[in-house]
Amino acid sequence: MKTLQSEPTSDFSAVTDFYIASVAQSDRAIQVRWSDGSNTTYHNIWLRDNCPTAFHPHTGERCFDLLSVSQDIHPLSVTLDTGTLIIEWSEQGHISCFEQSWLREFCYSGELAKDHSSSYQSWSCEFIDHIPVDNQQDILTSDRALYEWMSALDKYGLAIINGMPNEPEAVVQTANRIDYLRQTNFGVTFDVVSEKVPINLAYTSLSLPLHTDLANQEIPPGYQFLHCLSNESMGGESTFVDGLKVLEGLREDQPEYFRLLCEYAIPFRFHDQAHDIREHHPVINLDNFGNIVEIKYNAHLADIFDLPGEVMYDYYIAYRELMGRLKDARYKIELKLSAGEMVVFDNRRVLHGRNAFDDSAGKRHLRGCYVDRSEFKSRLRVLGKQLAKVI
Amino acid sequence: MKTLQSEPTSDFSAVTDFYIASVAQSDRAIQVRWSDGSNTTYHNIWLRDNCPTAFHPHTGERCFDLLSVSQDIHPLSVTLDTGTLIIEWSEQGHISCFEQSWLREFCYSGELAKDHSSSYQSWSCEFIDHIPVDNQQDILTSDRALYEWMSALDKYGLAIINGMPNEPEAVVQTANRIDYLRQTNFGVTFDVVSEKVPINLAYTSLSLPLHTDLANQEIPPGYQFLHCLSNESMGGESTFVDGLKVLEGLREDQPEYFRLLCEYAIPFRFHDQAHDIREHHPVINLDNFGNIVEIKYNAHLADIFDLPGEVMYDYYIAYRELMGRLKDARYKIELKLSAGEMVVFDNRRVLHGRNAFDDSAGKRHLRGCYVDRSEFKSRLRVLGKQLAKVI
Repeated sequence: MKTLQSEPTSDFSAVTDFYIASVAQSDRAIQVRWSDGSNTTYHNIWLRDNCPTAFHPHTGERCFDLLSVSQDIHPLSVTLDTGTLIIEWSEQGHISCFEQSWLREFCYSGELAKDHSSSYQSWSCEFIDHIPVDNQQDILTSDRALYEWMSALDKYGLAIINGMPNEPEAVVQTANRIDYLRQTNFGVTFDVVSEKVPINLAYTSLSLPLHTDLANQEIPPGYQFLHCLSNESMGGESTFVDGLKVLEGLREDQPEYFRLLCEYAIPFRFHDQAHDIREHHPVINLDNFGNIVEIKYNAHLADIFDLPGEVMYDYYIAYRELMGRLKDARYKIELKLSAGEMVVFDNRRVLHGRNAFDDSAGKRHLRGCYVDRSEFKSRLRVLGKQLAKVI
Repeated sequence: MKTLQSEPTSDFSAVTDFYIASVAQSDRAIQVRWSDGSNTTYHNIWLRDNCPTAFHPHTGERCFDLLSVSQDIHPLSVTLDTGTLIIEWSEQGHISCFEQSWLREFCYSGELAKDHSSSYQSWSCEFIDHIPVDNQQDILTSDRALYEWMSALDKYGLAIINGMPNEPEAVVQTANRIDYLRQTNFGVTFDVVSEKVPINLAYTSLSLPLHTDLANQEIPPGYQFLHCLSNESMGGESTFVDGLKVLEGLREDQPEYFRLLCEYAIPFRFHDQAHDIREHHPVINLDNFGNIVEIKYNAHLADIFDLPGEVMYDYYIAYRELMGRLKDARYKIELKLSAGEMVVFDNRRVLHGRNAFDDSAGKRHLRGCYVDRSEFKSRLRVLGKQLAKVI
């Protein structure tokens, strides 16, 4: 292992609180020791693949063909020059220049490796007094207000917009501030009113137990917007539970149940005259870093379980445990939406329901739509970058 | 264990080739022995949960509250009557009646348990002579033609429609025979033409290596429709590879590489002025039954890998192996679309690309849109049921 020592240039050390102290080559990688004592490893193949010249100058897309070099590509020389690591490669006579700030940002080993844990903050019933609220006019006219409200929604999975005009298109106009809408078999928008021949329980005046929407879809919709146009009926309070909070508790207390609900998929189905939409899903979905991504819980759409015989009984016990926890009043918030209010929540995290209502005294009418997570997260990133530039 | 013997009624045995021969109760389940010698187990809790009365008569949704009974619910009596299993339960004085044909259909244990393996059929370069083709007029006017063409597309992941009118809306009109379109950041439809300031490589005249679209989305689009409005340029042949076939080979030959590509997620990203859409995904996605659901492969959208340091090198080796296999000419079909032809393929299974073209002699213009898998599969089921009734 060869080691190259470096001293910071006075220029560079003035604007950052770290710099590359030394560089050494090992078999397949370069070892970087930083001025703060931390160590990071960069594999040769990774460095070559991520040479700044590998990306298209306009589109930012990766253009380098990884197979144009061998897996054994390695540096012929490594030089440090004013905060830049310069590598002359063993193939194609290529030279790569890496800024040390870039190397620091994208390091993937040791104590500096990127933290992939979730930034979501879970909540229980006390959240009723802390739900983020903003006014529709702010959301429509101010990017900063939109960004701050969306950041809170991202963190907590539930937020309110008030001051909504009593117009059917208001929900679309507001949601479009984020991005285009996610269409489903219920349309681009949907009206939650009591109907005489309902195609599902939402369109009755019955109570609706806590659930996530469209668990029968390959990917259930992300953020749900529910604009209250009128709510003069008796009852009809909206109920919410943070699925993330409930799952965190289950994971802690009953890891074996949690595992079963992650590992085995159950069938979900919605069918009417025109549709028969089915999908198997695990109730709990983790990302590749072990974070809880999603809960799919909809007792009404749960189809006939077809788990392996040896798992069926244990699964039912785990599933019942989750059902019981979801009914625990300590998790639940309940609020009666008024005309002009809109509730927005992450349908794949926060369960929603409603109390039964009697609409003989007055109508209950919510109008809804969805925006998916990819679009939501993208908008949040772009707004963040734009606002950072303004400052 | 109590056992109940039964003889078939002459009526019932006339229309089915099996009947319940005997029923026995064990601790948590009922054991059914069938006339053909097969044995199935039905857990008490599963039977109670799936009592025919548990489902809403209009909407088909599950209405029974599983927590309204205990996990120890069991039969007080089990009776067989003319092909119906009648259970009197230990709780709520409830009685359930199960048709034996239903019990047979939904059994989940033993040799009769549902087969969850995929019905897809993978292909190599010889498929060029067997691509399913139908005419647009048939697809528009005949449900049977649509059903048969969709069935072939479902099985092979690639099919052609010819006789398309040279109109921009023809692709939408045809795709709408299946269902509504999946919108993306590129719009509801998109035009693949060479542009002066491209936002991605598709909109140049460069060759486009094999890829799946929008791997950076939380769920990439399902079926892709590409209608050729003109292709008078030199070159510009479309290329396709069945990712399923390639992955089957990888799984067989290099199971450890296959596992790495399933287990670890890599980052994908598309960004322009208005968007920054990012997602981590494993390149290979299995369903809970071990079937290959999906390949996400897009070298252009692959962002800077942030795998754990100890995995990075091995992952690169596995990834390069896949890259190499995807380039193997034995897998590839190449066809030059003519005006009036439309190719349709499962974007999450079949990779597509194109050869470079020179459009100084004539324009190359493809117009595209997407329909997602949930909608496609639903339409196929509903058409199948409708056509079965017609017969």
